[in-house]
Amino acid sequence: MVEQVHAGFGRLDSAALFPTPLGTAVAVGPFLQATPEQMRDLSGYQDVTLIALQAVIPLLQASGGQILVFTSDAGAKPAANWALYGAARAGQNFLVRAVALEHAAEGININVLGSKNAIFPGFPGAPSGGISDEHVPSGPWSAALEQETPLGRLGTMAELAAFAQVLLDGSNRFQTAQYFSYSGGWSAV
Amino acid sequence: MVEQVHAGFGRLDSAALFPTPLGTAVAVGPFLQATPEQMRDLSGYQDVTLIALQAVIPLLQASGGQILVFTSDAGAKPAANWALYGAARAGQNFLVRAVALEHAAEGININVLGSKNAIFPGFPGAPSGGISDEHVPSGPWSAALEQETPLGRLGTMAELAAFAQVLLDGSNRFQTAQYFSYSGGWSAV
Amino acid sequence: MVEQVHAGFGRLDSAALFPTPLGTAVAVGPFLQATPEQMRDLSGYQDVTLIALQAVIPLLQASGGQILVFTSDAGAKPAANWALYGAARAGQNFLVRAVALEHAAEGININVLGSKNAIFPGFPGAPSGGISDEHVPSGPWSAALEQETPLGRLGTMAELAAFAQVLLDGSNRFQTAQYFSYSGGWSAV
Amino acid sequence: MVEQVHAGFGRLDSAALFPTPLGTAVAVGPFLQATPEQMRDLSGYQDVTLIALQAVIPLLQASGGQILVFTSDAGAKPAANWALYGAARAGQNFLVRAVALEHAAEGININVLGSKNAIFPGFPGAPSGGISDEHVPSGPWSAALEQETPLGRLGTMAELAAFAQVLLDGSNRFQTAQYFSYSGGWSAV
Repeated sequence: MVEQVHAGFGRLDSAALFPTPLGTAVAVGPFLQATPEQMRDLSGYQDVTLIALQAVIPLLQASGGQILVFTSDAGAKPAANWALYGAARAGQNFLVRAVALEHAAEGININVLGSKNAIFPGFPGAPSGGISDEHVPSGPWSAALEQETPLGRLGTMAELAAFAQVLLDGSNRFQTAQYFSYSGGWSAV
Repeated sequence: MVEQVHAGFGRLDSAALFPTPLGTAVAVGPFLQATPEQMRDLSGYQDVTLIALQAVIPLLQASGGQILVFTSDAGAKPAANWALYGAARAGQNFLVRAVALEHAAEGININVLGSKNAIFPGFPGAPSGGISDEHVPSGPWSAALEQETPLGRLGTMAELAAFAQVLLDGSNRFQTAQYFSYSGGWSAV
Repeated sequence: MVEQVHAGFGRLDSAALFPTPLGTAVAVGPFLQATPEQMRDLSGYQDVTLIALQAVIPLLQASGGQILVFTSDAGAKPAANWALYGAARAGQNFLVRAVALEHAAEGININVLGSKNAIFPGFPGAPSGGISDEHVPSGPWSAALEQETPLGRLGTMAELAAFAQVLLDGSNRFQTAQYFSYSGGWSAV
Repeated sequence: MVEQVHAGFGRLDSAALFPTPLGTAVAVGPFLQATPEQMRDLSGYQDVTLIALQAVIPLLQASGGQILVFTSDAGAKPAANWALYGAARAGQNFLVRAVALEHAAEGININVLGSKNAIFPGFPGAPSGGISDEHVPSGPWSAALEQETPLGRLGTMAELAAFAQVLLDGSNRFQTAQYFSYSGGWSAV
């Protein structure tokens, strides 16, 4: 797909990547009940990140460019019942930052943005309707999430996009190998 | 001054703060030769930050708003010969993040942006001419700085402003208590 | 005092430092009610650390040695109502680590140990009796502290001493510029 | 094996774990040449850690105890050419810390110790003879490693054991969910 885009437009300036494994993508619960299969599945986050970065970086090596990888803030703070998922995301966050150091001198900015509680249609537990890029409904289903977030609310996709844009649109090219938390302050406390 | 702005416009939405002490603002050199006077002067970063935040926060408590404090990435990674300056900045960076936690529930986003090697007219060692918001000259004076930066160049004020804007313009209100490094990746290695 | 010790024994191998300011040593409460005077007083942590390190390091430069600075884990995680105190400690923790980098090549190990909820006779809120190095009483006064600590209890001075010893007794000389949290896991969550 | 020990002694107080995958255990080199197979193999660090912790924790739940997991400091600082290995270790380090939070209230201390350049017989590049727990030979093979370490030398197994002991021998039970760097200060710069 990356090659098709490149062939079509003849040029790639930036890439937003959402690497997601094919199997189990989330695992929550007591560590003693976790299974090696869950961990194997979750390691897919790193596998897919490797594939995606290896596809995109060569297209940017001549002219420079920007890559932003979307991950989860669960990898930024250890939490009970989230050991496997958090570890998979922590490894993924680290991988992106290390790869960035190998390609910084080529003028490629590679950063990673870990979100949590920024919701979208299909968010686990959320109502099926009433969510738009700008609007987040609130209800009993969201109370626990709101409480764990210093800002006391969920984030929107429009907000996430606004922040992501400044890491992709070329206006700001002086950050690389950075991890950005996007979670209402969740990992800051 | 803050009060005058508020009285004039009747409303404050966001504030960009550059707290700087009145005395010595930078100290570089061997720790064993540092003086208590230098450290006292540098503690002014935190003093001025306290004053500025105490002036601005009350104006935002009713309606929410955004505050971005500009500091230095020297506070994000210990380095030889920068012990006093780095410690002053580390304390300042921490102060802002802790204050943010007290006012997050009021809808106030308070973040801190530490820059390094993003240059401006008057930057130490830089030529007096040829620097604009968009352009950074390069020469023997900048070689050491470029070398310590993974991206291999200095940053511009236009880039810094582009990144700062998304933390001040209301488009993105889901980050608080965050420290952002702005240094070409300097503190990432 | 350091000079007297050195003159008496002719040799210094290691030093445990507890830098404490002369004035206000703790400040807790809403940031908006904090005063510049409190912040000035708290900056004494860094002032005294500078003086202590400048006294001890020269005595170790020829033969190498170990320095451990005791500070607070409050400087390792921003928390509401602890902004000033935490910032003072964060700056102090950073200072020690940066100084360590200047003297690592001389074979001097300089580390910093930040404790919290490891109690001692005179601990704020604790009963005047019944505390020994090994024993910590528990009561209504300690419930909140126990609750904020993953291990669910307070620590003892004997435990703190056991950990500190391995950073001072010469058996382990391969760590420097490290910050060690000593708080039952407080700053890990 | 763990069950045999437990059956034999009737009691387990502490456990030192060195989880190592069966396949490729180290991968160094340009990220663009890395293979999914290498990444799969390296994910074994987390797989084996899961198995080991799930075997040991239940034996300590009634009486409390101490677990120390030995990993690598490569997971504590992103570095060029070490992306995959570092990511695997970062995930492993995170996993241990998160699991610790689930079992802290049971009086189990679970910490993780990441070493680098603390050498042992069989260390890559080292001579086959002349290494003991206390002695580290130096030569052209070690120059690059010494240079990347602030302390300017390699560490010994005796030093590593001295530090590990205080996290396993019961004298100090007030730390959990901690990551300890053991690398001469490598990840501090």
